[in-house]
Amino acid sequence: MSSVSAGASSAAIGFVKGHGTENDFVLLFDPEREIDLTPQLVAAICDRRAGIGGDGVLRVVLAATDPEGAPMSDLARWFMDYRNADGSVASMCGNGLRVFARYLVDSYLEPPGEFVVATRGGPMPVRLGPVGDVTVDMGPFELFDPDALTVSANGRSWPATAVAMPNPHAVAVVADLADPGELTRPPVVSPAQPDGVNVEFVVVKDEAHLLMRVHERGVGETRSCGTGACAAAVARSGGKPGSTVVEVPGGRLSVTIRTDRHVELTGPAVLLAEGELDPWQLVAAR
Amino acid sequence: MSSVSAGASSAAIGFVKGHGTENDFVLLFDPEREIDLTPQLVAAICDRRAGIGGDGVLRVVLAATDPEGAPMSDLARWFMDYRNADGSVASMCGNGLRVFARYLVDSYLEPPGEFVVATRGGPMPVRLGPVGDVTVDMGPFELFDPDALTVSANGRSWPATAVAMPNPHAVAVVADLADPGELTRPPVVSPAQPDGVNVEFVVVKDEAHLLMRVHERGVGETRSCGTGACAAAVARSGGKPGSTVVEVPGGRLSVTIRTDRHVELTGPAVLLAEGELDPWQLVAAR
Repeated sequence: MSSVSAGASSAAIGFVKGHGTENDFVLLFDPEREIDLTPQLVAAICDRRAGIGGDGVLRVVLAATDPEGAPMSDLARWFMDYRNADGSVASMCGNGLRVFARYLVDSYLEPPGEFVVATRGGPMPVRLGPVGDVTVDMGPFELFDPDALTVSANGRSWPATAVAMPNPHAVAVVADLADPGELTRPPVVSPAQPDGVNVEFVVVKDEAHLLMRVHERGVGETRSCGTGACAAAVARSGGKPGSTVVEVPGGRLSVTIRTDRHVELTGPAVLLAEGELDPWQLVAAR
Repeated sequence: MSSVSAGASSAAIGFVKGHGTENDFVLLFDPEREIDLTPQLVAAICDRRAGIGGDGVLRVVLAATDPEGAPMSDLARWFMDYRNADGSVASMCGNGLRVFARYLVDSYLEPPGEFVVATRGGPMPVRLGPVGDVTVDMGPFELFDPDALTVSANGRSWPATAVAMPNPHAVAVVADLADPGELTRPPVVSPAQPDGVNVEFVVVKDEAHLLMRVHERGVGETRSCGTGACAAAVARSGGKPGSTVVEVPGGRLSVTIRTDRHVELTGPAVLLAEGELDPWQLVAAR
């Protein structure tokens, strides 16, 4: 039909575009790990103008085929080979895992229900039906002393609570989501955290319903952050079992703290397009 | 394969993603004008996270089928139904027209060579081979008194020359492309232009080779602007016939002023992916 098929069909790569609360991904089905997925190719695919565009690539590989997935292949059939948009390797992403799990079920690669996905962050249990939201077991949390940190942005400061999911978060309650102003620079957290920290600003609509903005370390303000939503719910509930709705700019997530102190994250996973991309044209576009 | 095909295949819309110097578009092949292309659907398709992402949609319609194309159907077989990313109707776009013409040839809908495309800006002649760059006849220019305007940005000012392509441009020569600073706000042009103006900052590498940044009215700084490249070449050459290379952040364009005072714009047009999108999932994502 187009040069995509007419020009270099032998090299065409099948893809699906999906997102979870507007954290978006390009999925590549590559069960035998045959694609030479260089950082350059990942960056070209994720380029929002000269490529498909996305926050990252999720390569779908048989766990047994992948050197990193193989040790988990007794637990999980599929390995989520997640790469950031800059081409670097990433360990885990709650929003990405929901999209990955939805893809597996919609592609008949796993049956609906509960199964485990192998990730660089370890084996991750997921639960989903034939349609609808996806639930991910994000593992246990660690909650530190309430309000022991201070977060400052644009000349204002708030007390904040540290939570590890296991990545580090600082959760601050604000009266209005506009109060922190534009987060063009990272909020300042004191005492300073050596590896940086993700900062969540939260408005408490009621104890089971939070509104949240998030600044991700090394990234900037984003439309959604799965571990951030979990951290916000943990900080506000004091880690007590129960469910909390967390509204982020990209949509609505639900966080459940189980009695075994594991945190479950539930939210949408949308697969909106599929097709073929021409890696030669991506390179030509650079 | 995914929910895109499994869920709502009857409603799936075929698309191609392409770009010209990183001005990017989603092309929809709809010869009989059957898609209900609402502003909401256009905006959902162009959403860079919850959709395919693009600066606009180019619908490929038989000119005879389209109420606006029909008057041109003796000159052009195909009508370029161009919509901005916000869903509004747009008249013409030089970068979009190159991508549109490349799509027609690569899809065997027009033979390589010269043909005319019907647009809301009138019938537009294009010229292209079976592969490679695309040339568009952008029509005549109007050149006003040299350096009769002043452009100011971030506390510095430069004389500038007005050019109509026919949309309004102010072309300022700077010593270094970094001199105007960050163009987070529109440069100020005096005397003020009632309908606003596109501003080009140009470094003269030599008289046949310009480097350019552009601030498009109502949009902001962009990676490329076809009429802006034409205006820059017209202003620098004084409208004399000849060719100029114009490098923009998104790539390299070539502008030729013909002896009949028409301006030809030549540049790349890349089709990088094709597939099917699920309008139901786009709506679900909102």
